[in-house]
Amino acid sequence: MTAVLTGTAMLAVALEEARTGAAAGGVPVGAALFGPDGELLGRGHNRRVQDGDPATHGETAAFRAAGRRPHYRGTTMVTTLSPCWFCAGLIRQFRIPRLVVGEAENFGGQHAWLAENGVEVTVLDDPDCAALMQRFAAEHPEAWLEDIGGPE
Amino acid sequence: MTAVLTGTAMLAVALEEARTGAAAGGVPVGAALFGPDGELLGRGHNRRVQDGDPATHGETAAFRAAGRRPHYRGTTMVTTLSPCWFCAGLIRQFRIPRLVVGEAENFGGQHAWLAENGVEVTVLDDPDCAALMQRFAAEHPEAWLEDIGGPE
Repeated sequence: MTAVLTGTAMLAVALEEARTGAAAGGVPVGAALFGPDGELLGRGHNRRVQDGDPATHGETAAFRAAGRRPHYRGTTMVTTLSPCWFCAGLIRQFRIPRLVVGEAENFGGQHAWLAENGVEVTVLDDPDCAALMQRFAAEHPEAWLEDIGGPE
Repeated sequence: MTAVLTGTAMLAVALEEARTGAAAGGVPVGAALFGPDGELLGRGHNRRVQDGDPATHGETAAFRAAGRRPHYRGTTMVTTLSPCWFCAGLIRQFRIPRLVVGEAENFGGQHAWLAENGVEVTVLDDPDCAALMQRFAAEHPEAWLEDIGGPE
């Protein structure tokens, strides 16, 4: 990591968001966007269940919360779960150069695709992130499946 | 097209959205999501300028407006402009099987990537969509550049 904050420190913010989402009965994925000097630009969590909003994943929530920006040079997106195509596309389109992933066990996600396309990716294999998601997927399989586009 | 409505009929809804956005000074990209029987599920337009919301592109607005759905089988996304990676990722993640694009002249977009990955893509080369976007990009180059992630 070349960022000022460690990946673990950034992940703590995303995990707090995920837990806030879980406490409200939502899909427990949280994310945050940090600037080049480690400043928090935006944070948020999945709001499918809470707001009936299928377009607010953790990463899109954090991105929205960071507001309008002329560019994303030097930023880091941190998320508790490997990003789906929607969120990976966000990271690629806006050329967010670094991605920190809490876990990629409960969802394969597209972090490898981003790495192939020049994003500096760190997967932390965090057991707290994995346990939170695993529990939700077991207790609410339909909401989780819905969040990634339904059955194949 | 196997859909009940023609691509041109669906595009008219997206173009109306884009014009609504343009009238408010926003990035003039509109989109709509249609169901298997040609029913309108959701429609919307880019709201970067209007709401200071960088996560609401035309396609994400239409997707959000369609609400929670267990799957997207048989749906068609129609957009005035070829989708960026963010919106292409949305279409791929949620397995929206058909995409109608108004124009791909002002922005290359990722419709070809979607076609390679199984989406049925129709590009209509609509001159009204192209003129609307071309005018905005000429009059507000910074807002347009910002909407696709800033300078390379």
